[in-house]
Amino acid sequence: MTVYLTRKCEFSASHHYFNPAFSEEENRRTFGKCANLNGHGHNYTLEVTVKGEVDATTGFVVDLKELKEIMNREVVDAMDHRYLNHEVAEFKEQIPTTENIAIAIWKRLEGKLRVARLHRVRLFEMHDLWVDFYGEA
Amino acid sequence: MTVYLTRKCEFSASHHYFNPAFSEEENRRTFGKCANLNGHGHNYTLEVTVKGEVDATTGFVVDLKELKEIMNREVVDAMDHRYLNHEVAEFKEQIPTTENIAIAIWKRLEGKLRVARLHRVRLFEMHDLWVDFYGEA
Amino acid sequence: MTVYLTRKCEFSASHHYFNPAFSEEENRRTFGKCANLNGHGHNYTLEVTVKGEVDATTGFVVDLKELKEIMNREVVDAMDHRYLNHEVAEFKEQIPTTENIAIAIWKRLEGKLRVARLHRVRLFEMHDLWVDFYGEA
Amino acid sequence: MTVYLTRKCEFSASHHYFNPAFSEEENRRTFGKCANLNGHGHNYTLEVTVKGEVDATTGFVVDLKELKEIMNREVVDAMDHRYLNHEVAEFKEQIPTTENIAIAIWKRLEGKLRVARLHRVRLFEMHDLWVDFYGEA
Amino acid sequence: MTVYLTRKCEFSASHHYFNPAFSEEENRRTFGKCANLNGHGHNYTLEVTVKGEVDATTGFVVDLKELKEIMNREVVDAMDHRYLNHEVAEFKEQIPTTENIAIAIWKRLEGKLRVARLHRVRLFEMHDLWVDFYGEA
Amino acid sequence: MTVYLTRKCEFSASHHYFNPAFSEEENRRTFGKCANLNGHGHNYTLEVTVKGEVDATTGFVVDLKELKEIMNREVVDAMDHRYLNHEVAEFKEQIPTTENIAIAIWKRLEGKLRVARLHRVRLFEMHDLWVDFYGEA
Repeated sequence: MTVYLTRKCEFSASHHYFNPAFSEEENRRTFGKCANLNGHGHNYTLEVTVKGEVDATTGFVVDLKELKEIMNREVVDAMDHRYLNHEVAEFKEQIPTTENIAIAIWKRLEGKLRVARLHRVRLFEMHDLWVDFYGEA
Repeated sequence: MTVYLTRKCEFSASHHYFNPAFSEEENRRTFGKCANLNGHGHNYTLEVTVKGEVDATTGFVVDLKELKEIMNREVVDAMDHRYLNHEVAEFKEQIPTTENIAIAIWKRLEGKLRVARLHRVRLFEMHDLWVDFYGEA
Repeated sequence: MTVYLTRKCEFSASHHYFNPAFSEEENRRTFGKCANLNGHGHNYTLEVTVKGEVDATTGFVVDLKELKEIMNREVVDAMDHRYLNHEVAEFKEQIPTTENIAIAIWKRLEGKLRVARLHRVRLFEMHDLWVDFYGEA
Repeated sequence: MTVYLTRKCEFSASHHYFNPAFSEEENRRTFGKCANLNGHGHNYTLEVTVKGEVDATTGFVVDLKELKEIMNREVVDAMDHRYLNHEVAEFKEQIPTTENIAIAIWKRLEGKLRVARLHRVRLFEMHDLWVDFYGEA
Repeated sequence: MTVYLTRKCEFSASHHYFNPAFSEEENRRTFGKCANLNGHGHNYTLEVTVKGEVDATTGFVVDLKELKEIMNREVVDAMDHRYLNHEVAEFKEQIPTTENIAIAIWKRLEGKLRVARLHRVRLFEMHDLWVDFYGEA
Repeated sequence: MTVYLTRKCEFSASHHYFNPAFSEEENRRTFGKCANLNGHGHNYTLEVTVKGEVDATTGFVVDLKELKEIMNREVVDAMDHRYLNHEVAEFKEQIPTTENIAIAIWKRLEGKLRVARLHRVRLFEMHDLWVDFYGEA
């Protein structure tokens, strides 16, 4: 039986949106208040969904403790209480939009699971705004 | 990279369920308390999901301001604080069930986005009852 | 030991705000979109808090089944799937604002409990707007 | 038009995780605190999604009253306020993990609907942990 | 300045309601499905509110790390993944109703804080049922 | 009749905790990850409760549009998408803890209402951590 299991966690981080190739005015028009270079922040909520066969001896698709450790090590430890633009490698070159953070999280998690396969990364920036990434190139 | 982005909003409206081709008794049996012709109402929660490529210069799948304006103009301005049966064109002929409202919202939004494509309309009538429409005929 | 117990329930209703003593323009200015005489609606969430001594033989402040029955009989049966202005006695004369509905609910519940005392009626019109009434004249 | 409709309900149950084929130490290592044979419990939240054509005369994909009755009869009446390992047939042999409970619920619901088809069973054990089952063997 | 600070945590436990001084029939009538001696369970949500002066050098009413440690040590470690009637001292004699658990938690926490004072214990058994205890005898 | 009305809003901001009178080590020990001078951020949720008499002609305790405008002008416009330590006057000298932000918001709102009186400012930093301020010196 194939089951999808989702685990949720949270991290609090700072960011700003700014493209050095844009003019000052273009940054302001494209990114609005997010272009403030002092940064602002969010409580990000991350949902990681894995897909796999249910193990008959344990009833588990994935070892929950292991999944939690991977999420903490690869994402929370790296991004929680950080200014994403300045302190997380992926965002030195790339703008840390919700879209790009979700893709970065996928890449950090992919290949780390021993049993189940990564199915979806869902990242909420606010309760009314979120993105889903399924690893589609 | 293909990312799905979802934006949520709310509107408060009134409606009733009644089919003039049904007998009084059939309406009551099919629609229960919803058949009360005085109407009753809900805080509808709408989630609109769009799908698209992440733009390398902005990190965005869609211009969030534009998406919000489309949702407000096409849905909220038309349905918020309205009696759907009497004041919204689609429901003069059709019963405004959650299913039919979701389909109507899809049709109002479809083709309005310049970059991303509409992927899903999710509409909650209550926190424990909702429908999804993906444009499947 | 004095403990406060709260039970939550929901009902869906329609209403409008209109004072016949006001001019058309005054109604519009005071009540905005709520002045639409066709009505609009909400999923109201009601929280009823009672206060009392913990009974040593049951560990209860109040019989939960009884509390639920009183809330259903006095409030939900009367207001759910109703147009408050037209179908609920209190609002034939009074505008069904969240404030006035909460007071009406207090009066309907007060004196109905056999053991504990009514402490607070909290009524949400939306997730971001609610009122509390403690019976203060 | 094909629409997916979801209805949510809750039940409170007890369970423990234990495989008699494992050693005491293996059970503890695999299941942690869940291996406590006295049991512990959860407020399970169940979301059942059905898929179907919208009926032109009612605007419904499924009779909501019927769906609710099926969910209550097949799941809530059987599992609510129960110790799953001892009182629910499926878990006399199988460990009642969230994965296995979701599959058991699918099997209980499948084939009970007269109009729409079962699409997904989502079961939350906690607000931050849930599984989805789509009937994939 | 006097500020009230609240911290939330969760634990999952099993319980049943049964008074040996009652007849079988009286237990069933008073406690309904909760009288099942196999037990059933909940995800309890605990909110602990403390009251105190804001320290001018830290801006804190209480050391958050210390508050979390006290809540974990005194409540979560003792009650999480436990069958309350059988494994927690207070409930060998007393029925573990939400009321009695909240009072037991108050007594476990009272006097443990070095700076702020305990103000309120709020305990949710379900999202629609909770109690508040302020230490009122 | 005296009724309490609460309105909720949100803002996203950045902050860090640092006391220049403390040693580096003391800052780290007292504030942990919050001492990171690059800052991190949150989605703050603000609930403002006012208390007043229900106006017999409108059924309102307060003009909701006016309350919303005051909250936006005094709080959201000043703090949303800002780095509190660097961009909000109160926090040039004071550490922007949840406690101090709540007090600052009270002072910004107090005396701005024409009819009702400010009763409580509740500020959530996370869903599981919040403070209440009632203006108690």
